[in-house]
This record gives sequence, C-alpha cells and structure tokens, in this order.
Amino acid sequence: MSIESTIHEMAIAAKRASMEMAKCSSSRKNEALLKIAIQIREKASYIHEENRKDLLRAKELGLSEAMIDRLTISDATIDAMIKGLKEVAQLEDPVGTLGHTWLRPNGLQVSRMRIPLGVIGIIYESRPNVTIDAASLCLKAGNAVILRGGSEALHSNQALAGAINRALQETGLPEKAVQVVAIRDRAAVNALLRQEEYIDLIIPRGGEGLIRFVVDNSKIPVLKHYKGVCHVYVDEGADLKKAEKICFNAKVQRPGVCNAMETMLVHKSVAKEFLPIISERFDKAGVEIRGCPETCRLITGAKAATEEDWPAEYLDLVIALKVVDNMDQAIGHIARYGSDHTEAIITSDYERAKRFVREVDSSVVLVNASTRFNDGGQLGLGAEIGISTSKLHAFGPMGVEELTTTKFVVYGDGQIRQ
Amino acid sequence: MSIESTIHEMAIAAKRASMEMAKCSSSRKNEALLKIAIQIREKASYIHEENRKDLLRAKELGLSEAMIDRLTISDATIDAMIKGLKEVAQLEDPVGTLGHTWLRPNGLQVSRMRIPLGVIGIIYESRPNVTIDAASLCLKAGNAVILRGGSEALHSNQALAGAINRALQETGLPEKAVQVVAIRDRAAVNALLRQEEYIDLIIPRGGEGLIRFVVDNSKIPVLKHYKGVCHVYVDEGADLKKAEKICFNAKVQRPGVCNAMETMLVHKSVAKEFLPIISERFDKAGVEIRGCPETCRLITGAKAATEEDWPAEYLDLVIALKVVDNMDQAIGHIARYGSDHTEAIITSDYERAKRFVREVDSSVVLVNASTRFNDGGQLGLGAEIGISTSKLHAFGPMGVEELTTTKFVVYGDGQIRQ
Repeated sequence: MSIESTIHEMAIAAKRASMEMAKCSSSRKNEALLKIAIQIREKASYIHEENRKDLLRAKELGLSEAMIDRLTISDATIDAMIKGLKEVAQLEDPVGTLGHTWLRPNGLQVSRMRIPLGVIGIIYESRPNVTIDAASLCLKAGNAVILRGGSEALHSNQALAGAINRALQETGLPEKAVQVVAIRDRAAVNALLRQEEYIDLIIPRGGEGLIRFVVDNSKIPVLKHYKGVCHVYVDEGADLKKAEKICFNAKVQRPGVCNAMETMLVHKSVAKEFLPIISERFDKAGVEIRGCPETCRLITGAKAATEEDWPAEYLDLVIALKVVDNMDQAIGHIARYGSDHTEAIITSDYERAKRFVREVDSSVVLVNASTRFNDGGQLGLGAEIGISTSKLHAFGPMGVEELTTTKFVVYGDGQIRQ
Repeated sequence: MSIESTIHEMAIAAKRASMEMAKCSSSRKNEALLKIAIQIREKASYIHEENRKDLLRAKELGLSEAMIDRLTISDATIDAMIKGLKEVAQLEDPVGTLGHTWLRPNGLQVSRMRIPLGVIGIIYESRPNVTIDAASLCLKAGNAVILRGGSEALHSNQALAGAINRALQETGLPEKAVQVVAIRDRAAVNALLRQEEYIDLIIPRGGEGLIRFVVDNSKIPVLKHYKGVCHVYVDEGADLKKAEKICFNAKVQRPGVCNAMETMLVHKSVAKEFLPIISERFDKAGVEIRGCPETCRLITGAKAATEEDWPAEYLDLVIALKVVDNMDQAIGHIARYGSDHTEAIITSDYERAKRFVREVDSSVVLVNASTRFNDGGQLGLGAEIGISTSKLHAFGPMGVEELTTTKFVVYGDGQIRQ
C-alpha cells in the first residue's frame, strides 16, 4: 500500500474512533488512562529494549549528544510518564459541560456544550515521552489522535503505542483512538497534512524548521508557536530586589526553554543602580550580556548588541539588554521584536502595571513575576500540550480544554422562525 | 505599484491601525459606529449614485437577476445598514473583560483577558451591505479589517468605505482600521491570503467555490462554512402537530438560506401518520419531495431519491425524505451526509432528546425547534459575521466575541520558578 493510502486509511479509522470516544464517559476514559500507566509499568523492559534499538541507530547515524539524551527512555522517564498519566486522569473532564445558559424572548433555552475537537494530528521530534503526554491529553478530551514522532524514535514510539492500544482494548475503547505513524519517510507527514476531511487540528512540536514546514504544507488548521523571544521590562521606581530576583530566574533557571527571558529592558532612571547589580549576578552565572550603547557605558564587559540581537531567541546563557527612556519605548520594542509569547513588567506603579497588561498582547503578560510561569502546569491548567502564539482558538498554554470546542444546544417546545 | 505591494502596504497599515484600535475605549468605538450611521444617511444619494455605476456594469455584463438584486442598494438597504450600526453600538464590548480569576498556591493571581484578534480579512461576494456589517463588528471588537468585496460591487463598496473612513477620522480613530481593496483582479485575493505576518484571520463569505479557493490558497487561518445540509429528525412518539409546524417552517419559510432544512428523517412508527400530513402541506407550498422507497410507498407523487440527494444542499423548494428504523440510523445518516451545520430532533422522549443533543456534533443542535434559529441574532449573540462549521476557534454563529481571543494575565509580587 502506498504511503498516501496508508495514511488515508489511518485518518478514516481515527475519525470513526473519534465518534466512539466522543460518547465515552469520564470514568471510562480515566480507567483507560490508568490502564495505560499499568501497561507501561508492566512492559517497561520491552520499552527499554525497543528504545535501545533507536539509540543504537542514533549513534550509528552520529546524532548529537543532546539529541541522544532527549531520545533516551530512562527509568526516570518511565516514572514521569506514569505520573503524568495519573495526573491527567485526575483532571476535570470538560466534555459535555454546559456553560452559561440563557433564555430567548420566544422561550428558547440556549447554551454551549463543550465537545471534543474530533481527530488531532501531532507531529513532533525526538522525545518519545511526548507520545504518552499527547495521547493522554487527547484521550481525556475525548478525541482520537494520530501521532507522528521523529523517525529516530520509531521503535520507542511503537512500543509505547503498543502499551496504549492494549490498555484501550482492555477498557473496551476503540484501539484506533491512538495510532502511531510507523513510516520514516517524510512523505508521511505531507500525506497527513492533506487529510483535511478527517483531521480537525494539527499540533507540531519541535524546532522552528519543523513548524514552518507543517504550516506551509497543511490544509488543516495548525496550532503552533515558532519561538519565544520573552522580555522583562524593569520600570522606573521598580523594587530592585524583586527585579534582580525575577530577572535572574527568568534568564538563568532554565535558559534552554521557550519561556526564558531573552531581552531585558531597563528604564533609564534605574539603569545606573540596577545594571551593575544584575550584571554581577549574570557574570557569576556565566551569562553573556549584549547591550545597547548606554548599557555598555554602565557595565564593563558588556558586548555591543547588533540589530540581530533584538529578535534573537538564544535559548542559552546570553542576554540582550537595552536601556529605554520610557514605557512607550519598552512597549514599542516588544511590539517590534517580540514573538507574542511571554512578557513581564517589574513595577510598583499601579497605573503602569495596568497599562502594560492592557497594551502588551502576548499570550501571557505578567506583573512582578518570572516569565518562566508561562506553562500549563504552573498556571493551573494541568498538563499542557504546547503553547500557542497564534491568536486563533488558543493563545498561550494549551491544556485539555483547548483540545475541545463548543456547540450550541437549543431546547424549544415548538418554536418556529417568524 | 504592483498588486502584491499594494496589498502588502495595506496589510502593514492595518496592523498599525489594529494596535491603536486595541487600546480604544468602548465609548470611542461606539461613537465611531454612530458617526458611520450619520455619514451613510448624509451621503445616501452619493452611495446610490455609485451603486448605479455597478448596476449599469452588471447589466452590461449580463449578470443574473438574482445577482443584480443582491447588488442593489435601495433606500431599505440604507435603512437596514443604519439600524445594524446602531445595534452593534449597543452590544456589550468584550475587549478588556476578565473571566474567572484563580489563585495559584504561590500567590500568583491568574485570569484571562479578552483582547481583539488584530487584523481580519473579509472576502465576500456581491452584497455591498456586508461592507458595513463586517466593518462594524470588526471595529466593535477592536480589530482592523481589510475588506475585499466582489469586483461587481467595487463602486458601491468604495462609497461605503468613504463614509466609514470619514467617521473614523471625525472620531479620531485610525482611518486605516477599515480598508477596502479597490482592485478587480483576483490576484489581489491571492496577495491578501499571503499576508500571514500581518493578518490574523480570514473570513470568506459567499458560495462554495469562493470558500474553497480561499481555503486552498490561504496561509492565514480561515473561519468558514461550506454548506448547510440541515436535518430534522421526527422521532417515534413525537408530537406530530409540532413536527408539522417545525418541518414546514424549516423548509419553506426561507428555502434559499444555509439553515433551511434539506433532509427530513422520519421514524418508521410515525411515518404512516405523519408523511401524508406534511406532504400535503409541502404540496400546497410547491415543495418537491424526493424520498426513499418507503416514502414513495406512503406518499403518492414523491420522486425516488438517488444517492446524490442525501448530501445535497438544494437551497430551494425541494426536500429529501427518508424513513428510518430507529434513532441510531438517523444519527448515522446525519454523520454520513450532514455538514455539521444545524440538526433538530422532534421528540417527546427525555432520554432520546438527551442522546441526540450529546451525539450529534453539529454547530447548533435543537430539540423541538426549527433549524432556522441557527443565526447570531436569533440565538442572542447580536449581529453575526457568519456561521462556522469548522470546529476550531468558533463553531456555529460568530458574533463580536468570536472576533476576539484571550491572553493570560498574571499578577505576582516577586514570584520566581523553583
């Protein structure tokens, strides 16, 4: 069978399974999630074995240490998957809930009912634990899912899918609710992106290259985020102790992730006092500073920033630093160079906090807190399936609810249109 | 200047205007809407004049009576536009409102703030009143909009845009918040669909051909509905008086619109009693019935339906009619042939009403009411900008709120990530 028709049949099967899943009660879905956890525990040695096949091939292909690290399923990875499954089972099920209900003058009772999206396609790179994370959230929300992981994780992903399918079978849920594409050829991704008749949403997870490829080739709506160029603006009159603590945390606690700060903007009235303090801490942590002329005047050892530094997502111990004349300039800089991901203001001024929150349109805007809080778990959504920086459907961290939609439900007693 | 660069510059100007609009208070936006109404009243004779140019050209080109009818701006059209503007001014402004706010264990206060989408592109056919309807809803939601109406309505649309721009100017709002593409060449649509860096959403309004063209060529998310193949299912034990009233209304009251019933499904236990009653009423109204074999047995004069009839959107006084053995068969038929638009059940049974509502995933599902209620105004959303049958972002009628999104707002007092 050709790649095109294999994928087409998977999409049809997913659609059928999604209709079963949509009717499924919360307790059945939770039972399935807990059974997947049991299966993973029981099949752990088989999963490790299959993972070793991927690792062997990765070494033969000369993949980087970092990639091999992300590809590895350790005992800790297994434990984390199981913990994640139990957490998702505990989340509230949004499906079937009714929001605010209103009455029309003619007596019609109208409300919105939350329903699953249908079929979701996830396209991701190396880390095989995404297979479990993504599948569990999609199942919880009553969807069917087609997973296409990195070709380097093929054996691992198939072993994990085996555990999931066994658990679905044992619970009496449709096995085809979770399918893994076992085709290394990238043509499989192209084929998947053309199943607009059966797949309702595509979520790519990985580097900017993968995401651009998906957006450029998909006929299906895509929820994505390209990059996180996150800013912290230290305002005039800010509490500099808080500013120091937050800026250091935002840059240094985990520099390789999308919600780490990349650019710091500092009001000129506090720059002279604040820059030496924070640069000393950055120095000790090995952070390289690339600054505007005023920054370089105030801090010895700062490199001069170029135009490339302002939109850069370093994902590393490097920071771009700019002294601004006022808040307008800070907001303007964010609008021009930011990526709509996460922005924070450090301020003690009520009016300016209010204005920053209203005028900065990033998916998460914070006052006096670290950018690192842009995360589904940290914000209280439970597990997350990614962070969207496009505004349609979801903007910011996406949890179970973002994998659903609403339909209108109307109860009447014979009403007709006049 | 080339078409591509003209459109590109419009998109950049729209993006800039959208940032002004986002900060704009409700009272300023409402003032602008009411000023547009005044402008339209004052410029009515100029608008009629420009409309006559379009009508003259349309007649020369030999366009159909129906198209010329839709293109005509009568005094009643002017009155309706003005009434619509006043209604939109009265709607609640969703922008800046905060939903449910929750506290995290570390003291962070998290909520979602409603914000405008940004820049919206509307691509539509002949009816020039869409220019006013769409512009007013986009402005109310704090967006900028680029309107590309049918080339046959170019003069009318430019005259209307002139009135809008004058009103924006008088109110001190950015003129570029509403722009009309004054290029007849379809290349302008292609160019518009490539401005993904500046435009956040495309809404096509028109026939299936236009919508497919937009979906196939857009790099920007599209909210669309292809067609409305709406069903009414008359259940076992239904109140046949209600069934008669609702089915007649759903088919006959305005057959040319997307929420009119196209297929009627009747439970076999009531078919013998109900079909002669409803077919007599349909006969008198000139409705042609195309039925399954059982229907043809029960009604003299019904034509035999072919496989093409079940997915057909007639938009005319024609109905497909099928007798079903049970509710499973009715739900299965809808899943197979429906368009996820609008479905109704006529029933007196609590369990079956509940099941139909839960299992039929159309944008509007009704119990004992006409499909004709799938409409933003009828359901209480105020004016609508269209009906979405894709599930992402909006499913069903779209009002002002569907032209916005939410961002997360987080208030802290120094919190950092552990």
